[in-house]
Amino acid sequence: DHHECAVDSVINQKIQAAIDSKVSAALKNVQLICVDVSARGADVTCPSGYKPTGCACGMACGSWDIRGNTACHCQCANIDWTAARCCQVGLQ
Amino acid sequence: DHHECAVDSVINQKIQAAIDSKVSAALKNVQLICVDVSARGADVTCPSGYKPTGCACGMACGSWDIRGNTACHCQCANIDWTAARCCQVGLQ
Amino acid sequence: DHHECAVDSVINQKIQAAIDSKVSAALKNVQLICVDVSARGADVTCPSGYKPTGCACGMACGSWDIRGNTACHCQCANIDWTAARCCQVGLQ
Repeated sequence: DHHECAVDSVINQKIQAAIDSKVSAALKNVQLICVDVSARGADVTCPSGYKPTGCACGMACGSWDIRGNTACHCQCANIDWTAARCCQVGLQ
Repeated sequence: DHHECAVDSVINQKIQAAIDSKVSAALKNVQLICVDVSARGADVTCPSGYKPTGCACGMACGSWDIRGNTACHCQCANIDWTAARCCQVGLQ
Repeated sequence: DHHECAVDSVINQKIQAAIDSKVSAALKNVQLICVDVSARGADVTCPSGYKPTGCACGMACGSWDIRGNTACHCQCANIDWTAARCCQVGLQ
């Protein structure tokens, strides 16, 4: 008898419809948020909550590595500055 | 009297269950989407909606910076090309 | 007659409230997860599920490109090592 649980199925449909629109609206606000930090010398650390996605170095140096998942280190000699591109996923 | 708001509590459970499955399914589709762009000269801009996460330069140059949160700029002299790794968070 | 669909509107309010708290809680767990990989020579590939966001090269080389959306390639001559910063969006 298709009237069985009529109330249930209407409520379920209501719930699904409301959720779909709400969840996709919320997910649209999920963004990649990035900032740049730089410092004199061969090391610079991202602000807390951010992670480096790439590093730049003075002296045209392209040899770097990431330390502790939070900081850029430039490896060439006499590095005058180091910069980090720092990103996180957040709601904006 | 645990029958207090019986209908309420059943509906609440329905709602919670539906939301849990929907939200986790939706979150599985949240992805890091990245593209590469390059241009002659010392500057290149990411497509709209994307942000640079790192930059590459011609002439073996590792000195770059990010401008306006959208573009890569290579700092060495006589740069012949600039490339940007451009990413965003999206549903895929 | 504002009593029109009284049950409907109560259920809708219930749903909206439950979703808001659930979605924002879930989204707090969405994180940018990054790892570093490196290899001898001019190429290195990110672990599956990850994408390069930036590359580093030996020999102070800042000229690189990303291949197949998964790997870093360093372009200078006699590259001794290549490293990739590999990221994804995940629940943590």
